[in-house]
Amino acid sequence: MATPLAQGPDAIVAKLHEAARNVAGAGGLSAATAIGVASPGPLNTRTGMALGVPTLPGFVDYPIGEKLHRIFGRPVALANDGVAAAVGEWRFGAGRGCADFVYVTISTGIGGGVISDGKILSGRNGMAAHLGHMAIARDGQVCNCGRRGCWEAYAAGPAFERRAATALAAHHTAAQVFELARGGQAVAQALVDQEAEFLGLGIVNLLHIFDPERVILGGGMSHQYAQLSHGIDRVIHSCAMPAFRDIPVLRAEHIGNSGLLGAAALATL
Amino acid sequence: MATPLAQGPDAIVAKLHEAARNVAGAGGLSAATAIGVASPGPLNTRTGMALGVPTLPGFVDYPIGEKLHRIFGRPVALANDGVAAAVGEWRFGAGRGCADFVYVTISTGIGGGVISDGKILSGRNGMAAHLGHMAIARDGQVCNCGRRGCWEAYAAGPAFERRAATALAAHHTAAQVFELARGGQAVAQALVDQEAEFLGLGIVNLLHIFDPERVILGGGMSHQYAQLSHGIDRVIHSCAMPAFRDIPVLRAEHIGNSGLLGAAALATL
Repeated sequence: MATPLAQGPDAIVAKLHEAARNVAGAGGLSAATAIGVASPGPLNTRTGMALGVPTLPGFVDYPIGEKLHRIFGRPVALANDGVAAAVGEWRFGAGRGCADFVYVTISTGIGGGVISDGKILSGRNGMAAHLGHMAIARDGQVCNCGRRGCWEAYAAGPAFERRAATALAAHHTAAQVFELARGGQAVAQALVDQEAEFLGLGIVNLLHIFDPERVILGGGMSHQYAQLSHGIDRVIHSCAMPAFRDIPVLRAEHIGNSGLLGAAALATL
Repeated sequence: MATPLAQGPDAIVAKLHEAARNVAGAGGLSAATAIGVASPGPLNTRTGMALGVPTLPGFVDYPIGEKLHRIFGRPVALANDGVAAAVGEWRFGAGRGCADFVYVTISTGIGGGVISDGKILSGRNGMAAHLGHMAIARDGQVCNCGRRGCWEAYAAGPAFERRAATALAAHHTAAQVFELARGGQAVAQALVDQEAEFLGLGIVNLLHIFDPERVILGGGMSHQYAQLSHGIDRVIHSCAMPAFRDIPVLRAEHIGNSGLLGAAALATL
């Protein structure tokens, strides 16, 4: 469903309720014992407060947990969307059986979740792993969050499409650019190479920071994994310290649904 | 003691033995039940292998754990130095009682250690938290590790002294530059402000990545905390997402000894 951004937080929460009822169908929600919600962050998952979400106007000190609990009338497990997706891949996908991995969503933004020593990396307020808001460039591109140089401002989908619009002198979706590159179009291939380089730069940082067993890429951009993987690996081999070069970067198994699966898993824990 | 870099790893290990015997004094090492060693990384603390340490020539696939075990004849707890220092502050210093914090050493390089949910962030091989090798600039300064743009290449002591040598047209130690700034020297103050900005940029990344309760700064540069703190806080207030702006940045309590204390604590666990 489209998110009714202009109508504000309460309308969006009502939409979530409507979506859940639609999914439940004729039986309604009576059989649901708990509700799992994956939401863009930052949100304090301990208090249920949304704290100035860059992509959702009006979600500033908004008690989303309490509102959902009231509207659904049952326990609500609330997770930052990147964390929920990491949990989804951990339980059901490319992270199964893995005690230390970093999951990165590359979509309209960049988010993430980290599993460390068999546990979710949460931080003091459940807001850890806002990986897209790691600056990789000084005085660089302006990010949704207002800061300059964030990884998200370079490697997320909109940044790629913006570079493509300039280089190709026409609007293309990311998928179209990747298709052009597959067809041998040199400018499109250069755009793909640059995207892999931006992704690789941030991933190398994460290797040095987390020393994970693997990195898992999800989100819309990861549909293009086959064309990005080689370039990402090249950056890892030239930029990571030798001890970190053997860490594999894999594709999520449930692109598009990792977050839903993870939210459901968290609700039933 | 000076590290006999030119003589290679075996000579350095022999020096460690000599240092330990000197500290033990007349009684010798017979009363020591275990040995704790904090070493520059990356080193695989599970296998005891040093894996290409940028600052120690010859420590490439070098079995430092086994060598130490053989020379000392007792169990050896081996830790990356930043991790050991984090543990030292956790047990005895500015991290006491804190379940989620990030410790950063700013010295000849930048290292670190992370305590997350009351446990040491280790990663698959005990090599997590090489925080200095997080790139914050594209195509930037060349780092000890060979990569361009690492935080260490901007905010560690040698980078500061290099900028100072250029700006002041003469060599000064970091301490001298900070003293000039205290005396009102404008160029020195600008150098201090820039150092705070570089530190702040990396710290903001770590806030977004770890959502810690606090950040603790150690290493030689943290002696200048009083002159850097305000500038770091300014970067946090202008660059961190609002939900992360209240996280305090504190000074280590055992600058110079955090790593020793931590190594000892790890040896007696």
